[in-house]
Amino acid sequence: MDRGFAARLDASDPLAFARDRFELADGIVYLDGNSLGAMPRSVPGALSDAMHRQWAADLITSWNANGWWELPGRIGDRIAAMIGAGEGQVICGDSTSVQLFQLLTAACRLRPGRSVLITDGNSFPTDQYLADAVGRMLGLTVVRVHPNNLGEYLTEDVAAVAFSMVDYRTGELFDAAGITAAVHDSGALMLWDLCHAVGALPVALDDLGSDFAVGCTYKYLNGGPGSPAFAYIAARHLTNADLPLTGWHGHRAPFDLEQQFEPSATIERARIGTPPLLSMLALDAALDAFGGVDMAAIRTKSLALTDLVIMYADSELAGCEVSVVTPRAHERRGSQVALRMPHAYEVCQALIARGVIGDFRAPDLLRLGFAPLYLRYADVWDALVALRAVLTEGEFRRPEFAVRSAVT
Amino acid sequence: MDRGFAARLDASDPLAFARDRFELADGIVYLDGNSLGAMPRSVPGALSDAMHRQWAADLITSWNANGWWELPGRIGDRIAAMIGAGEGQVICGDSTSVQLFQLLTAACRLRPGRSVLITDGNSFPTDQYLADAVGRMLGLTVVRVHPNNLGEYLTEDVAAVAFSMVDYRTGELFDAAGITAAVHDSGALMLWDLCHAVGALPVALDDLGSDFAVGCTYKYLNGGPGSPAFAYIAARHLTNADLPLTGWHGHRAPFDLEQQFEPSATIERARIGTPPLLSMLALDAALDAFGGVDMAAIRTKSLALTDLVIMYADSELAGCEVSVVTPRAHERRGSQVALRMPHAYEVCQALIARGVIGDFRAPDLLRLGFAPLYLRYADVWDALVALRAVLTEGEFRRPEFAVRSAVT
Repeated sequence: MDRGFAARLDASDPLAFARDRFELADGIVYLDGNSLGAMPRSVPGALSDAMHRQWAADLITSWNANGWWELPGRIGDRIAAMIGAGEGQVICGDSTSVQLFQLLTAACRLRPGRSVLITDGNSFPTDQYLADAVGRMLGLTVVRVHPNNLGEYLTEDVAAVAFSMVDYRTGELFDAAGITAAVHDSGALMLWDLCHAVGALPVALDDLGSDFAVGCTYKYLNGGPGSPAFAYIAARHLTNADLPLTGWHGHRAPFDLEQQFEPSATIERARIGTPPLLSMLALDAALDAFGGVDMAAIRTKSLALTDLVIMYADSELAGCEVSVVTPRAHERRGSQVALRMPHAYEVCQALIARGVIGDFRAPDLLRLGFAPLYLRYADVWDALVALRAVLTEGEFRRPEFAVRSAVT
Repeated sequence: MDRGFAARLDASDPLAFARDRFELADGIVYLDGNSLGAMPRSVPGALSDAMHRQWAADLITSWNANGWWELPGRIGDRIAAMIGAGEGQVICGDSTSVQLFQLLTAACRLRPGRSVLITDGNSFPTDQYLADAVGRMLGLTVVRVHPNNLGEYLTEDVAAVAFSMVDYRTGELFDAAGITAAVHDSGALMLWDLCHAVGALPVALDDLGSDFAVGCTYKYLNGGPGSPAFAYIAARHLTNADLPLTGWHGHRAPFDLEQQFEPSATIERARIGTPPLLSMLALDAALDAFGGVDMAAIRTKSLALTDLVIMYADSELAGCEVSVVTPRAHERRGSQVALRMPHAYEVCQALIARGVIGDFRAPDLLRLGFAPLYLRYADVWDALVALRAVLTEGEFRRPEFAVRSAVT
């Protein structure tokens, strides 16, 4: 295994063409696309049009003339096609946190008399915070359970279960089919958080029978910083999902300007207020980077990239106190590799100084994310060589790499 | 009174210089800046920088390197300066609807044992819908009261009162000082919705003693379509405002990634999830259009513009079944004029065909909004002459102007 091996993988990579769809600086290996995806080249032109033609020239008429009103549903349908959902079940808008509040409340309201909401105590904090917020509002008990230990907790008291499909730290991909089936067997409803899955691996929401899902669009979907999240409501729940944030965009007839809220009978009921259209239009354009790309091809390359990292860690970093935390089994692996090591923070900073951008997760994880559309095998190889150098040459011990910034 | 009169007002207008700060098409008189403000010329360059340098080049490091993390508070402080609020009390993010849910819940939670939430049955529907949503969540009764009739409803059962400072249809500006004082006398808390006030007239939130406020930024602040809203929490409530949407950005130490939510002790607690940064950066740049402009000068010109419309309606449209709905008293007038007339919808469409863009509010109002930064008196004069022509020549009866679009 050498750089030539990686270069040969690039030469035969069916997704190699897609890198040119992104604006990426030379000399950077970007392994944090699971936090913020790179910028598709389709975005600047679209935003220029959004500013000069749609906003400045067409002004308020753009709501009709340029389809602004339909955008949340139109983007939603584009995302639906990437997560195995039929049309009319996904809406785009607001943040993941807000969408979690919306859909967790709706899920629990569909199971009156049940008093428990289950979330994962290892999931990203906002998932836990919003579960607690919903539990408080509805008078439910929130129980933190690891997805792999769910079985014993699935009593008839459980109203809903909300898990991230991929652990944001370890990269573990959970058994979505098995978990969803077990949740349904207990009579509860299932919500999947797809933040670390959408755009990185195939998701089959309709086939899973998932009831609800949320996800962000600024990671593997490359929608831009803070681009709006999405919400999925299975068709069978569309007319009875009782959402707490009853903004006027979710009304069945918003322009009748009625005094009483009556929800739309469609996925439009999950709209709230006026969405941030410049961010939405950037996202809409960004999704073009997936044009003609099959999610199975993305998955194949994602696994090959993470295989390369794991093989390298096993062979070349064996003496460096580095251990692979991410599952080795393909069916349990997302599109990232978490490496446990002493001084992970300093190692991450030393890598950034070398142009290899990953991130650190306390207390001891170096987390590397792999976006198959724009990463080359040879770049990943170079990043691994840099990692070995940082570790074996003690470079991470330089004092500047121990400085903690306020925001990490 | 003739076009020369208007032109002379332009010649002596101390805000005349500001029009060049906006990209506006020739031949359009834009009287709907109270729905979507025009585009400041400062925006495209800022968004180009946001895309190419901050997103594409600096990537994830922008959260630190380009101050993304601080943006909600930094924009909040800029808005605070425009609404008479000291620093550290305003945060920018999410939609007005979401912010109403947040702050109405916090207000009512600060008055436990009180069972009534008052809103205005004439206010924009989302204000009413979210009041109902909060009432339902907290088990409160929502009572709809006109702001001018509030007195008799202010019992010791009232937890909070939420009014728009300006009626979105009639343009009536309410007695904010008198209402706030009366609400406080009853022991309740006051929330002002500033959507139709911010950027159009001076607001003195701290002096009023207002407890909470929300507002949007895409009207008179010209932040762009759907640009994020803002939330004001008076300093005295910052450590005890108990907000329902406990997203991780509002945590006292978000990067500790703790399992339990602990709110920030500052206005940062009103943050929720990751904000739509491209829309936020556009808004930040758009606010530059107010640079060096005093809100008192804006108010003076706003009143002069609406005076011109009212005088014209009284004198030139006297025989056209047109009546002025907006209060004539300056202290009761926002920055718009609502004209009641038969066939208001068709008249509005006929005006748009002539390049005069206002809007229609059912059943019989033509609503004209006046943004003093970019409107010229002579343009407004031309719009009024066009209105008279549409009315007196029967132009509004042409069948194409009766066609209703899905979105109005």
